[in-house]
Amino acid sequence: MAPAAPKSGDAIFASVDRVNAELFTLTYGAIVRQLLTDLEEVDEVNKQLDQMGYNIGVRLVDEFLAKSNVSRCVDFRETAEVIAKVGFKMFLGVTASVTNWDTEGTTCSLIMEDNPLVDFVELPDTCQGLHYCNILSGVVRGALEMVSMKTEVTWLRDMLKGDDVFELQVKLLKQIPEEYPYKDDE
Amino acid sequence: MAPAAPKSGDAIFASVDRVNAELFTLTYGAIVRQLLTDLEEVDEVNKQLDQMGYNIGVRLVDEFLAKSNVSRCVDFRETAEVIAKVGFKMFLGVTASVTNWDTEGTTCSLIMEDNPLVDFVELPDTCQGLHYCNILSGVVRGALEMVSMKTEVTWLRDMLKGDDVFELQVKLLKQIPEEYPYKDDE
Repeated sequence: MAPAAPKSGDAIFASVDRVNAELFTLTYGAIVRQLLTDLEEVDEVNKQLDQMGYNIGVRLVDEFLAKSNVSRCVDFRETAEVIAKVGFKMFLGVTASVTNWDTEGTTCSLIMEDNPLVDFVELPDTCQGLHYCNILSGVVRGALEMVSMKTEVTWLRDMLKGDDVFELQVKLLKQIPEEYPYKDDE
Repeated sequence: MAPAAPKSGDAIFASVDRVNAELFTLTYGAIVRQLLTDLEEVDEVNKQLDQMGYNIGVRLVDEFLAKSNVSRCVDFRETAEVIAKVGFKMFLGVTASVTNWDTEGTTCSLIMEDNPLVDFVELPDTCQGLHYCNILSGVVRGALEMVSMKTEVTWLRDMLKGDDVFELQVKLLKQIPEEYPYKDDE
């Protein structure tokens, strides 16, 4: 029996330590600029941002579980809702909506109309292949892997490229059986 | 006649957009790790973090002046108090105290007992020369330069190196006369 997950992350967001969003936005911008200078290839920058995000997601999931009182989700569908409504709110201060489910219930999209990562950002023409928010897809992928869900996370729409929203497609590849630190029967 | 500056940044901090401090901390950690990998030399990393911070400070000062209702400070002494009590609170959610003034009133120290940048951070032995928080000294230097104060900002104590507090020395080198966009008499 799973206790009901909180409906929104508002109360949790209000209770955690926070920093100014503009400082975060500018700091993130500094990372992206640094990577573009160091790595030169936009594809490499995308990969590096995703990897950074993955490492962060693997760490953040602990704080998420400790602070949110969310317990095990019943299925991927519930997991997606919790990420969009509680996780995004708790960390970024905004929520996403979940849509575009496939019939199997293994692929959906998280839609964001507001994204603190991109305030004041404009992509120059030379960076059109850049997935500026790739750290975020990495965070989602890393956090989900820590709760035994291997996923593929892809940007389908991007406001920095003229789309009306950000659309992050999350595809469940497989659920990894959880490994316990010991087995009772051995 | 300068209106009194607000005593603390609490109200301002409560009113600005914020993100989760742990997300910020981990993201900042990812930058430092990336720079250490790319630049190899700790001194180069220190320089790069300072430069990133400078660029951020130059931008942040606009938000600070817009949101804080702080108007022109009477002197460097008042400026230091405003940075410590309003600026630090507004952006990092913590305050600093101002001490160790020299007799000329041009050098002081900002003391921080709490610093969200360093949560979970431990410096490995190979990084003892790293000024992990150098982005912060850069921010202070950049922000002050935008209000016409050229400063030198140096870490004197660092909790990551076993000190009991962070001590950031701020030394006023010169006050640049403000340039107006036009001159009445020409």
